[in-house]
Amino acid sequence: MTKTTNHTTSGRGPADHEVRDQIVKAATEHFRLYGFEKTAVSDLAKAIGFSKAYIYKFFESKQAIGELICANCLREIEADIRAAVDGAARPPEKLRRMFKAAVESSLRLFFEDRKLYDIAAAAATERWAAVRAYEERIAVMLQDILRQGRESEDFERKTPLDETAMAIYLVMRPYLNPLLLQHSQEHADEAPAQLSSLVLRSLSP
Amino acid sequence: MTKTTNHTTSGRGPADHEVRDQIVKAATEHFRLYGFEKTAVSDLAKAIGFSKAYIYKFFESKQAIGELICANCLREIEADIRAAVDGAARPPEKLRRMFKAAVESSLRLFFEDRKLYDIAAAAATERWAAVRAYEERIAVMLQDILRQGRESEDFERKTPLDETAMAIYLVMRPYLNPLLLQHSQEHADEAPAQLSSLVLRSLSP
Repeated sequence: MTKTTNHTTSGRGPADHEVRDQIVKAATEHFRLYGFEKTAVSDLAKAIGFSKAYIYKFFESKQAIGELICANCLREIEADIRAAVDGAARPPEKLRRMFKAAVESSLRLFFEDRKLYDIAAAAATERWAAVRAYEERIAVMLQDILRQGRESEDFERKTPLDETAMAIYLVMRPYLNPLLLQHSQEHADEAPAQLSSLVLRSLSP
Repeated sequence: MTKTTNHTTSGRGPADHEVRDQIVKAATEHFRLYGFEKTAVSDLAKAIGFSKAYIYKFFESKQAIGELICANCLREIEADIRAAVDGAARPPEKLRRMFKAAVESSLRLFFEDRKLYDIAAAAATERWAAVRAYEERIAVMLQDILRQGRESEDFERKTPLDETAMAIYLVMRPYLNPLLLQHSQEHADEAPAQLSSLVLRSLSP
């Protein structure tokens, strides 16, 4: 195997996780510029200065690299949402901020670098594991806010929690899922406020 | 101009609107089978047995034919929604039926004949006049139900009507717009009931 990396130090190669990080970082930049769909692993190898075989030692496919980039991107969105939610004291305001941060952060990460949208769209279409896990974590975050709001008596308690949570998730979905968000950008400025007001009216005790 | 139609009767040609109807009907069938994007006016002419020039006498472009097909399709969805709404006595039930009929009728017309989705998608992407007019009529139908519900005291009156109507429209939009609906089909069975329940909770006085 040809190994053209210049990252070996003091005779020992870098740790596996370092090489993986390096590949993911370079791949992210490469996909950003040239798109995910249009890039082959051989293009990527050439750009990083690794052999194709060396990349395959760490990732079994282009999708495996894409999955990690996608997972990182979704983690970033989730962190933004969580920070926004944690910044508010009461459940109604938490819900408003959750909606607002979700839209802003998704727009920024999926569309600002138009080329990363490629990966997000493939991930959402094929329902990669990272996407399913992200959706699950967002649903749990939403349920937590609802539970807190029921305890603080800000929210009604008659409707089953699962039903409320699922319906609100459906209201947010067009702004979380990149496939839908691409067709909702014209509403992205006003929708979070309008929809969270509607949702809060639906939750009033 | 070569005129290969065999629809001239008793020496006089058919009325213009009859020829237009005939072209639209044949074009609908043709697009259904071969898709809108992939069909050229010359293919259409050949299939109908008209000359290309004769078709251009009645429609300035393929899009103009598509617009009429799209308008017919949207009128059909609107008629389904209106029939469902008129079949209910009270505003809350009208709203539930509006949502349900909108989803079912849109799914049927946009997706059952997969090829007609082509036209609907082009229309929605380019915001053809027929689409804007349809959205406007649906918004008015929604406002009428809200107004009736305020009068009958089924719905709250504190929130400005425009605000309520816009927010509910945003909730319905992913199931009305074919570009979003294509990515919402997995939720299409349950979403109308879940979302209209949420909306009705938000409207309770």
